[in-house]
Amino acid sequence: MISESMKTAVGGNSVIRQMFEEGKRLSEIYGAENVFDFSIGNPNVEPPESIKIAIKEILDTESPNLVHGYMNNSGYEDVREAIANDINKRHGLDLTFKNLCMTVGAAGGLSIVFKTILNPGDEVITLSPFFGEYRNYVGAYGGKLVIVPTQTGTFQPDLGALEAAINPKTKAIIINNPNNPTGVIYREDTIKAMADLLNRKSEQFRSCIFIVSDEPYREIVYDDIEVPYMLKYYDNAFIVYSYSKSLSLPGERIGYVAFSNRMEDADDVAQGLNIATRTIGYVNAPSLFQRVIAKCLDSEVDIYLYKKNRDLLYNHLVSLGFTCTKPEGAFYLFVKALIPDDTAFAAAAKKHNLLIVPGSAFGCPGYFRLAYCTSYKKIEKSLNAWTALAKDFLNDTWTTKEFNMY
Amino acid sequence: MISESMKTAVGGNSVIRQMFEEGKRLSEIYGAENVFDFSIGNPNVEPPESIKIAIKEILDTESPNLVHGYMNNSGYEDVREAIANDINKRHGLDLTFKNLCMTVGAAGGLSIVFKTILNPGDEVITLSPFFGEYRNYVGAYGGKLVIVPTQTGTFQPDLGALEAAINPKTKAIIINNPNNPTGVIYREDTIKAMADLLNRKSEQFRSCIFIVSDEPYREIVYDDIEVPYMLKYYDNAFIVYSYSKSLSLPGERIGYVAFSNRMEDADDVAQGLNIATRTIGYVNAPSLFQRVIAKCLDSEVDIYLYKKNRDLLYNHLVSLGFTCTKPEGAFYLFVKALIPDDTAFAAAAKKHNLLIVPGSAFGCPGYFRLAYCTSYKKIEKSLNAWTALAKDFLNDTWTTKEFNMY
Repeated sequence: MISESMKTAVGGNSVIRQMFEEGKRLSEIYGAENVFDFSIGNPNVEPPESIKIAIKEILDTESPNLVHGYMNNSGYEDVREAIANDINKRHGLDLTFKNLCMTVGAAGGLSIVFKTILNPGDEVITLSPFFGEYRNYVGAYGGKLVIVPTQTGTFQPDLGALEAAINPKTKAIIINNPNNPTGVIYREDTIKAMADLLNRKSEQFRSCIFIVSDEPYREIVYDDIEVPYMLKYYDNAFIVYSYSKSLSLPGERIGYVAFSNRMEDADDVAQGLNIATRTIGYVNAPSLFQRVIAKCLDSEVDIYLYKKNRDLLYNHLVSLGFTCTKPEGAFYLFVKALIPDDTAFAAAAKKHNLLIVPGSAFGCPGYFRLAYCTSYKKIEKSLNAWTALAKDFLNDTWTTKEFNMY
Repeated sequence: MISESMKTAVGGNSVIRQMFEEGKRLSEIYGAENVFDFSIGNPNVEPPESIKIAIKEILDTESPNLVHGYMNNSGYEDVREAIANDINKRHGLDLTFKNLCMTVGAAGGLSIVFKTILNPGDEVITLSPFFGEYRNYVGAYGGKLVIVPTQTGTFQPDLGALEAAINPKTKAIIINNPNNPTGVIYREDTIKAMADLLNRKSEQFRSCIFIVSDEPYREIVYDDIEVPYMLKYYDNAFIVYSYSKSLSLPGERIGYVAFSNRMEDADDVAQGLNIATRTIGYVNAPSLFQRVIAKCLDSEVDIYLYKKNRDLLYNHLVSLGFTCTKPEGAFYLFVKALIPDDTAFAAAAKKHNLLIVPGSAFGCPGYFRLAYCTSYKKIEKSLNAWTALAKDFLNDTWTTKEFNMY
């Protein structure tokens, strides 16, 4: 018999993952070419060729027991040093290998951070809409996720609401920049204001409020917009990074956590991350891919392909009457549903083989998320389905109740 | 400021990992050739050449977005099916892909099992000496690790003591076969008796007591001894397997959990393992290595090299007067220390650049563990150091108190 908490989890499993599996099921029935799966952020743009070259080079030149063996739980020192130097070069910082812990992707990074800093009952603020898995990563260590809505329409942080939510139990705020699911980017002035606020509140409560900056989409940015590097603005910040999206390697589970020496108790934090990596059962980030990353620090995927996707889908949806903030980064559109009940709307979309994730999964009902990291051709082919879906609602004869029947 | 529980953890970090790091430090001082690091189970025997061949073949023939992308959180269906068929062929079972969940090594496998089955306060029995990390994997989900000593000298399960420890709160017993740290193997008659006992107790308490069989050393077995396959003997059993040792890939974090359809609530368990994989932050076992494993199911490392190491070190230690049960599997010797205080003994060994792990780390004071998965040459070179260490204690002038000064 499974545990009580797992019974609950089985009952309310990830909507994103359910849709992803549903997409595979529908593909078997209708053929993959007729199913428009916008459910999950599984990049379709190929990893750079340098990944393959690096893997082969490592296999041909390095000792297999080194490449596939245990290392320090925080990762190979030479790999961490190479990444630290790369960060320093890009952002004018002075990190060393000691400021990095290699992780099992961003999910692993967030988990070791929360295991390191959270006492049971501590509060972690997130800005909605937010990536739903934060509930699990915070809840696993007894933390309470406190949801503060962003500004309606722009999805930019509402600093007044944020300030009002901070109290002596606030241990951290987690932000996702560029944002999943909205694709918005928090610019430098916003980050500076947030840093000022948190410094002021930390002083007021004589506490240390961390910023956990979840940045897997840092490189997926359009129109030459700069994503501020949090360590330059706030000392008690963790950068949680992943190569899942920037190099199209989500299955490989490779990322890192970076922090500054100016962080409070930086040495304890470094040891905490190291121990958490081991005790959560990761043991270490996958070894070969650590070494691969060190050789591919200048590599990137072809962002232009995502931009083309964004423009095609965004323009079509807006022309149909959908409301959507144009995303500046990541590969998601967060669109207002045509009826208030986003779950019913997702069910209606499924009738047209359109797989979308209701906004409720991101703490923001009345919207839906589209992952446009699929092929341009597939998006082109889906346009008629979107038109048909919009038409379903034009005559206003549908009601939420009817949709619930699906 | 780090959490209270992490402060405690930082204070009492893994002795094995501390020794591993100490080995690297001493190597820098004395030269790697003069430091005899027997601390960690980091295989020195090379992975089979087939691993490298499989990786290159996959990179050259499969779609990179498939190879490096997301899949079902439980792993690729085709990989799981291939492994299930391999298990069926070896053990005469009828598993399908649904009976397997790919994991981030055995550590990841144990963690998802415990997250799936444990309610806070549930008890998990382990037989000492035991792998110390079990404390973390069980404790993370509110479980209480109950330690039942094995029989003195043989390290075989004491079924009477096991029976006495079982009560209505007992949710599972975790066994490690072949055993780390002792290298002993539980034979078929022992496994049958244990299964009988647990069936009887499950009936008595109207509960479901799981066996969690941690088997990363299944293939590291000498002298043609058979390791019983638990699913043949007990329905409510999890096999937790890893390729870390059998294919010398510990850094890659690749393994699986297997269970039978005859397990109670097998469908819920399958979903639970899937969800736990996602929510603990693993997301999935590393993707490329899942695909590699499916191509290397018949591969093995050269066990003879470990056997040679075992024989050389075992015979030398016994000739010096050490007491040790000759291991039949894994690559560890569990040796009685020459003084009761195993921590002091490990400190004395370090004076000779011998890095060993005190038995206390395995819940069995008065012993020490040696990992002999190092080179034969290194073991040969260490023999004089062992002789010198033994001599330190021959004249019996040392006392525990003196050793504590190191």
